[in-house]
Amino acid sequence: MSIPYNRVALIGLGLIASSMFWALKRAGFQGQVTGYARSQATRDTARRLGLCDHVYDSAIDAVKDADLVVLCVPVGAMGAVATEIAPYLKPGCTLSDVGSVKKSVIEAVSPHIPEGVHFVPTHPMAGTEHSGPDSGFASLFDNRWCLIVPNGADEDATRRLEDFWHALGANCERMEVQHHDLVCAVVSHIPHLIAYTMVGVADDLNRVTDQEVIKFSAAGFRDFTRIAASDPTMWRDVFLTNKEATLEILGRFTEELFALQRAIRTGDGDQLFDYFTRTRAIRRGIIDAGQDTDAPDFGRGKAAK
Amino acid sequence: MSIPYNRVALIGLGLIASSMFWALKRAGFQGQVTGYARSQATRDTARRLGLCDHVYDSAIDAVKDADLVVLCVPVGAMGAVATEIAPYLKPGCTLSDVGSVKKSVIEAVSPHIPEGVHFVPTHPMAGTEHSGPDSGFASLFDNRWCLIVPNGADEDATRRLEDFWHALGANCERMEVQHHDLVCAVVSHIPHLIAYTMVGVADDLNRVTDQEVIKFSAAGFRDFTRIAASDPTMWRDVFLTNKEATLEILGRFTEELFALQRAIRTGDGDQLFDYFTRTRAIRRGIIDAGQDTDAPDFGRGKAAK
Repeated sequence: MSIPYNRVALIGLGLIASSMFWALKRAGFQGQVTGYARSQATRDTARRLGLCDHVYDSAIDAVKDADLVVLCVPVGAMGAVATEIAPYLKPGCTLSDVGSVKKSVIEAVSPHIPEGVHFVPTHPMAGTEHSGPDSGFASLFDNRWCLIVPNGADEDATRRLEDFWHALGANCERMEVQHHDLVCAVVSHIPHLIAYTMVGVADDLNRVTDQEVIKFSAAGFRDFTRIAASDPTMWRDVFLTNKEATLEILGRFTEELFALQRAIRTGDGDQLFDYFTRTRAIRRGIIDAGQDTDAPDFGRGKAAK
Repeated sequence: MSIPYNRVALIGLGLIASSMFWALKRAGFQGQVTGYARSQATRDTARRLGLCDHVYDSAIDAVKDADLVVLCVPVGAMGAVATEIAPYLKPGCTLSDVGSVKKSVIEAVSPHIPEGVHFVPTHPMAGTEHSGPDSGFASLFDNRWCLIVPNGADEDATRRLEDFWHALGANCERMEVQHHDLVCAVVSHIPHLIAYTMVGVADDLNRVTDQEVIKFSAAGFRDFTRIAASDPTMWRDVFLTNKEATLEILGRFTEELFALQRAIRTGDGDQLFDYFTRTRAIRRGIIDAGQDTDAPDFGRGKAAK
């Protein structure tokens, strides 16, 4: 698939940007990729890894003449970066971002966009618990969804950006801003918060040592700690900026949890069984939809019969 | 490693028992393995798969002359099975179980054990979201912990059982009954309950369709649905029988979650950042302890650079 840009600028060089670069290389991208990161250490690492064709010491230099500029910084930093680079964006270019929250990013970035620049927000739903320029890999987006939130952007610019993400391996789906933030609160933000909480509880408990928690963590807890190891800055910003939806879903979650807690206290086995049977069916649907593997031992390597 | 039994009986032929059988074969076990399952369909499947050297239609026939009998049924069914087979156990043999809760199993099984039979409860901490006789595989227990809860059992019998689990690939650690149930509530039972709840909330929400939940489930939610697909009968019994510890940990969990919810509501980014940083460190400890892989994309196959 051909990539409809000659020069792509990646602002912020963490897991997502570095994966985008390797995926661009894999796709045979012939144009230039420029990069910028705020910290000298990150820029040094990126240069050492050969990440981007050129890493600049200034965001302004990195975006000059770019046909596509992608903001890959934490959600809370999007506004400041947009303010800085906006006057230097090439007329007709596309500005995008990869933030996990869309309403607050649009509110922070849109006012700075010059006439003739197309702002098309996106959200590639892919990640690992690792962060930084050395954590990226070319297949991160393969068969994952990239949500596109055009919010009234130019149709041609939006289509070009969809072609770009397809070339990186992702599937695209357009979504309305508010709906995006609610869906993501459900399938991503609140699960992360809960994982963080559970790992914190385990660590706090006096009668169970950290040593025991670590040593005996089986499937259930292991998966929680994986999630809870994600980048703290990114997730802090997600919760601060998607406050409305996360608080709503949290309310629903505690309501539901209290109902199960009551079933445990009263010994209502039927209610527990029915609940667990229903959630199992949802899982089957996720496998059928091709969003995960069905390998034994959660697909973790040594599981061959 | 040599296996110190000539005849092993597996009562209940689900994920754990079938994995034990394949692990015994892998270990070169030369003795006989007999099996029994309550349902005709499970027995038929086991026979078709070649699971066990002989599958009997009665638990009593399966345990006769066995040197080791392992109860691999849901925790709530342990007492009834023990009552049935107890009079037919060979003098000097070892009776064990693989239940996830130990206090209630010991209370249900111990009163039926005849003089001269050694009851040594165990809990192999390994599993997948699959269940049934066709879900087992030989490497399930490799490098996982098998908790041994001797509870006053004969030392020689306990050591033989530890040798058995080592031969199946597991590491063994002895634990006191009450402590076992608390540790498991923290690292396994409550994480499962929370995963079930989160999947249920997602499914309930009217403004987000099941289709969307399934389609867009990324890392965080995918891991939850994996956990929440585990066997409903097994988990119902776990919560009904480990009531005290699960209710205690649930109380701590909601307390902690409300503190984070308050930080989101008041916009306290420092509190969120500090919390997320602490849980990330716990995760690093789990990797260092060798309980999980550090592979990108959660070690799920396509993650090569």
